[in-house]
Amino acid sequence: MVIKESNKAPARPWTDVVQAKRAERDALVAKHHAGNAGTDLLSSGGDPIVNVEQVTSLLAAGDITAEQLTRVYIARACEAHKKTNCLTEINFDNALEQARRLDEFRQTHGKLKGPLHGVPMSFKDQFNIKGLDTTMGYAGLAFAPAGLDCPLIETLEGLGAVIIAKTNLPQSIMWCETDNPLWGQTTHPANPALTSGGSSGGEGALLALGGSLVGWGTDIGGSIRIPSHVNGLWGLKPTSNRLSYRGVEVTQDGQQHVPSTIGPMATSLDSLVTTTRLVIEAAPWTIDPLIPPIPWRESILQDAASRTLVIGLVLDDGVSRVHPPIQRILTELVAALQAAGHEVIPWDISLNASCIEVNDAFYSADGGEDIRRAVEQGGEPFAPKTQAFVDRGKPISVYEYWQLNKKKVASQRAYNDMWQQARSPTSGRPVDILLMPTMPHTSTPHGTFGRWTGYTKLFNFLDYTALTFPAGVADKSKDAAYLDSGYVPRNTLDEWNWKLYDAELMDGLPVGLQIVGRKYEEEKVLGAAQQIQKHL
Amino acid sequence: MVIKESNKAPARPWTDVVQAKRAERDALVAKHHAGNAGTDLLSSGGDPIVNVEQVTSLLAAGDITAEQLTRVYIARACEAHKKTNCLTEINFDNALEQARRLDEFRQTHGKLKGPLHGVPMSFKDQFNIKGLDTTMGYAGLAFAPAGLDCPLIETLEGLGAVIIAKTNLPQSIMWCETDNPLWGQTTHPANPALTSGGSSGGEGALLALGGSLVGWGTDIGGSIRIPSHVNGLWGLKPTSNRLSYRGVEVTQDGQQHVPSTIGPMATSLDSLVTTTRLVIEAAPWTIDPLIPPIPWRESILQDAASRTLVIGLVLDDGVSRVHPPIQRILTELVAALQAAGHEVIPWDISLNASCIEVNDAFYSADGGEDIRRAVEQGGEPFAPKTQAFVDRGKPISVYEYWQLNKKKVASQRAYNDMWQQARSPTSGRPVDILLMPTMPHTSTPHGTFGRWTGYTKLFNFLDYTALTFPAGVADKSKDAAYLDSGYVPRNTLDEWNWKLYDAELMDGLPVGLQIVGRKYEEEKVLGAAQQIQKHL
Repeated sequence: MVIKESNKAPARPWTDVVQAKRAERDALVAKHHAGNAGTDLLSSGGDPIVNVEQVTSLLAAGDITAEQLTRVYIARACEAHKKTNCLTEINFDNALEQARRLDEFRQTHGKLKGPLHGVPMSFKDQFNIKGLDTTMGYAGLAFAPAGLDCPLIETLEGLGAVIIAKTNLPQSIMWCETDNPLWGQTTHPANPALTSGGSSGGEGALLALGGSLVGWGTDIGGSIRIPSHVNGLWGLKPTSNRLSYRGVEVTQDGQQHVPSTIGPMATSLDSLVTTTRLVIEAAPWTIDPLIPPIPWRESILQDAASRTLVIGLVLDDGVSRVHPPIQRILTELVAALQAAGHEVIPWDISLNASCIEVNDAFYSADGGEDIRRAVEQGGEPFAPKTQAFVDRGKPISVYEYWQLNKKKVASQRAYNDMWQQARSPTSGRPVDILLMPTMPHTSTPHGTFGRWTGYTKLFNFLDYTALTFPAGVADKSKDAAYLDSGYVPRNTLDEWNWKLYDAELMDGLPVGLQIVGRKYEEEKVLGAAQQIQKHL
Repeated sequence: MVIKESNKAPARPWTDVVQAKRAERDALVAKHHAGNAGTDLLSSGGDPIVNVEQVTSLLAAGDITAEQLTRVYIARACEAHKKTNCLTEINFDNALEQARRLDEFRQTHGKLKGPLHGVPMSFKDQFNIKGLDTTMGYAGLAFAPAGLDCPLIETLEGLGAVIIAKTNLPQSIMWCETDNPLWGQTTHPANPALTSGGSSGGEGALLALGGSLVGWGTDIGGSIRIPSHVNGLWGLKPTSNRLSYRGVEVTQDGQQHVPSTIGPMATSLDSLVTTTRLVIEAAPWTIDPLIPPIPWRESILQDAASRTLVIGLVLDDGVSRVHPPIQRILTELVAALQAAGHEVIPWDISLNASCIEVNDAFYSADGGEDIRRAVEQGGEPFAPKTQAFVDRGKPISVYEYWQLNKKKVASQRAYNDMWQQARSPTSGRPVDILLMPTMPHTSTPHGTFGRWTGYTKLFNFLDYTALTFPAGVADKSKDAAYLDSGYVPRNTLDEWNWKLYDAELMDGLPVGLQIVGRKYEEEKVLGAAQQIQKHL
């Protein structure tokens, strides 16, 4: 992100910027909402559309045009926005123009442009899209449209995808509710009193309400997985630099030691697999030297999708016990997997604490300077969570920073050694994946959510592949059996989490569990997910 | 490296440490020098042994035992040390024990233990070898033997390699002559008044004198390529994390943005190819999560070894013009390559300066604290070059460090874009490799060497694959034609370099040129080297 060097007051009061940006957005939403009312009759053989293949089949068959399809998604995106305040930059006019060009292509060539022909996609407000701002929720970055598309956009458009809109995120991007002074708060699709999670919370709400088919988020501590969990979505956090971050802006850019990574979120696993495969097959290493040239390895996916797996199970990370619905859903899934012949073994959590300690030290290594500058540039107030984040610690020296890096590498190697040595006690086979919660709770009321993200951020620190999938929904009648009547808090975080549990309020809310593989194991995790999906 | 936290004076005067360490070394050298005198009758069908295959063929045929072979190399290593002061830690007793076990293996099983059975190897004094110190030339790290072998040693020993000794390096490892208060100065094999280069200068002298067949160095600015250049060797600097740095100690550990990388040095290209292939085929990513799982791709090597290449040529990097012998040897090689059908096109150097500016800022980002602590821990004096290095700049803040990282990534992407877009104007084909000098001069007298390392460090900054090969030797009669009589210095570095030229002194000294490929292009660079070798 571009930060001005001067300490001068912003050229324009932040409140003016907010008013102007929101007015622009709201006018576009209103125009398209009205223009596309009543268009939603979309289904595929009677089933609701949830994946990429359904869309491209309909378009290939000529049952619908790309423009008609885009109008359906625009209408839904407008509805979703009205309900949850999930959108930031509106790209509807361009999307329709893109769709018309796709229709022309199909008419001229008698075939689809590519395997994502007509697929509506949305992007967290960090991805540069030519002509749109990349504010990341900062007033100071408004009215400075990107001059270039990020390479991911170029790749996806080349494959036929249609870019619908950009979506909301929290100020600083470093917490897991979605709210900022520029765009305001995004709410949960099921209940406006609850959060849609974060930091890719705009994507979470939009996708859950069918306003987009595939969304792109970023994840430095759980920011793809957490909104996938609370909104009933599939979300993949790849290893960093498996996909390219080029042209994607980020808070604390340059802090590359706990790397933020981009990844897809979707309403179906098929969409996640298809999109990830296509983006890797586009050979991102040719345009981004940070990417190692690891091709898409379909055989690894097929292997993990077809044989019995050895699964390391984490029911409790030792810090914050999960709420009854999560415990129930994970326990039931484990029973189903074991019945199907998979081996499930307890997973060692003894290295978690030291990893997370080093991880958190990276987040605060600059004493909050990067985020403080970004907020001050626009002049808007610090949200309480942002304030707490930038005040977490004094900056450390570069020498100390290097010592932290050494600790990080040592911790990563120790964890890898542990995994390398772990074996199923019955078969002696190595462990394929971990199965575990994404968070200790479902969505909760605004301001109360996500104080403990240890279940997710561990895998940013280790830079492992992690996927959150919709495993079930809270059910107060079934969950009651899992409530520990003799509960004694083990620490303040655990106590805080326990008090959040509200069986009535949470009834029916989605629960997402996590599948974890090691570095560059995207194919394996997606393949394992295909097997696990059969038991949901 | 382990740095004590206290500021207390060292437990033992540094001069005592030096005396004790050198006495220990010298006693072992004297013992083995006497014990192995007159053993050197080694040849393969009349030819001198220069590569791995010759050694393993002799051993497989039973023409010599591993113990006999090891004794030959020990004797030569002792001679080389006597001549150049290249050794630090002596492993001769263990090497002989290893060799005897290999001989037993062959007798018992009727075959060699592995493809490196009996191959004598040496290691720069950063690689942990169980039972030996890893001083890196610091008195403060003496008498603290490593508890574990680094995984590279385990891999190589598993393949049959015999570990001969560890070799000298400069105090701080951040300059390119080889001298430190603990072990003293290493000299050039051809002339004791000249430097053997650095920082892997002990390896350079030892290998050139036949005291080892394959050596392992490290390279953060040219430290493998520079001693290969001045000593007439083949040296490969791979992309960082293609091979594992685990268990290898280093100055400024934790500064991972201009990454130091390990790599092999050898008297033949075949040895370099064989060793690199075997070490990658050992799948280092299983023991080190920093390594992306990129297998050895023999097809890429074979392709680059067999088709006509498009070669980007750098004769002059715009900062310091090369001396006449280097200009002549490079010019003659280019003519030979063109005659063989390869395309040679001029290479754009316009991005060099900005890359090197960012590169140098990383080296001094901690204000010299890491190296200052390491020296102060032992109490020895700072060498003038070390003093200059630690005094180069004030430490920057972590926030500024992050800005530097952003610049680095932007520069790497810009350079990649340039390469990606470059085409042969005649055939339109993309550029395969660069061909260029390693340094602007050959070896020079101690204290005068290597003020400008821009020809090498650029590729540490870009993290590209680079290989230095022995391209010829200075020849005062031939070189005279390349002396520019109208020379006008373009800057102080250029002027300094020009004044270093001494046709008499340099006559006969090796000149190594550099082949450069992009990230993870080890196979391509080695394949291209096989073709270029035919024209030497």
